[in-house]
Amino acid sequence: MNFSSKILEESVTALSSLPGIGRKSALRLALHLIQDNSKKAMKISAALTRLSTDICKCKTCCNISDSDICNICSNTIRKSNVICVVETARDVMAIEDTNQFNGRYHVLGGVISPLDGIGPADLSIDLLLNRIKNESTNELIMAISPTIEGETTIYYISKLMKDMDIKVSVIARGVAFGGDLEYADELTLGRSIVSRIPYNVQS
Amino acid sequence: MNFSSKILEESVTALSSLPGIGRKSALRLALHLIQDNSKKAMKISAALTRLSTDICKCKTCCNISDSDICNICSNTIRKSNVICVVETARDVMAIEDTNQFNGRYHVLGGVISPLDGIGPADLSIDLLLNRIKNESTNELIMAISPTIEGETTIYYISKLMKDMDIKVSVIARGVAFGGDLEYADELTLGRSIVSRIPYNVQS
Repeated sequence: MNFSSKILEESVTALSSLPGIGRKSALRLALHLIQDNSKKAMKISAALTRLSTDICKCKTCCNISDSDICNICSNTIRKSNVICVVETARDVMAIEDTNQFNGRYHVLGGVISPLDGIGPADLSIDLLLNRIKNESTNELIMAISPTIEGETTIYYISKLMKDMDIKVSVIARGVAFGGDLEYADELTLGRSIVSRIPYNVQS
Repeated sequence: MNFSSKILEESVTALSSLPGIGRKSALRLALHLIQDNSKKAMKISAALTRLSTDICKCKTCCNISDSDICNICSNTIRKSNVICVVETARDVMAIEDTNQFNGRYHVLGGVISPLDGIGPADLSIDLLLNRIKNESTNELIMAISPTIEGETTIYYISKLMKDMDIKVSVIARGVAFGGDLEYADELTLGRSIVSRIPYNVQS
């Protein structure tokens, strides 16, 4: 690309470093920002500066937070005895959006994946163990993706819980609600037959 | 979406104001920037600030530029008697990428479109007339999209040139090179038959 402006070229290079944005898309965004009169570029710039400097991790649960302790951990109305263990902060948001969970979270920051060089020490498992000792936890809900790495992580953590008298549960897996059986993958469909659950007619 | 951080929410709102980026994509980008260790957020932020404050329009041709006169207008090696008239700065880049044009440009900043309330006075046509008077221009190449609005603009400008002894040409229209005739639209294919050109066998 022949840029008539170095500043434009810098912006395109910077924007195209984002995932899913190529140089052509980045150029389209940069030209949009130049033509825009509402100071959108300055607003985005200010927001990204704050994102880079002011955001931190909650010291209790490792979730993304504006302060040392996040809103969820500091909320006294939420149950403190149930911890939902998730992979990333994005998963916390996804579960919060369901309005079905009223306990605390713990963000591992990934899953055990020897091929990627990620071992238990790279995750916030030690912090989780400390929490369980200090808080009156009696249940861990493992809301981790049912991949090989996810299953390994669930197994590893549940083994640590064995001597601690903590109930460990895993979120239900099976065919999606509203989904067509025809399009469910074989593994999911097969497993959902093996792990079928009793159906109770409500009177 | 339930955000655990106000700063994150602000960034998502800012990023989703960009064209083609929804709130889910914006969240994905923001979380990527938080996890990134290479200070990508700060780099983008700095680039966008410069984009907002330091970029300007070339006073001669209205192209995007870092200084009052752009690289192309200040380049004495380029022909000064041919001006290629385009709609936007993006079109200048597209033509420069072809390496087929060695003259100057003039960016109109749009096309005449009464439905959108854009008349000749909203475009940089006056500036173009001044250039033609001051520079030794003898050809205008109209590289404007062959839409109704584009054709109107070409007609308007070429009418102004009538008394000025300036040659006006339009970029060739027809089926694209490498394109399949089968997939060419009817209008383009029909027009390319009507305006067929003599084929000379090179000896």
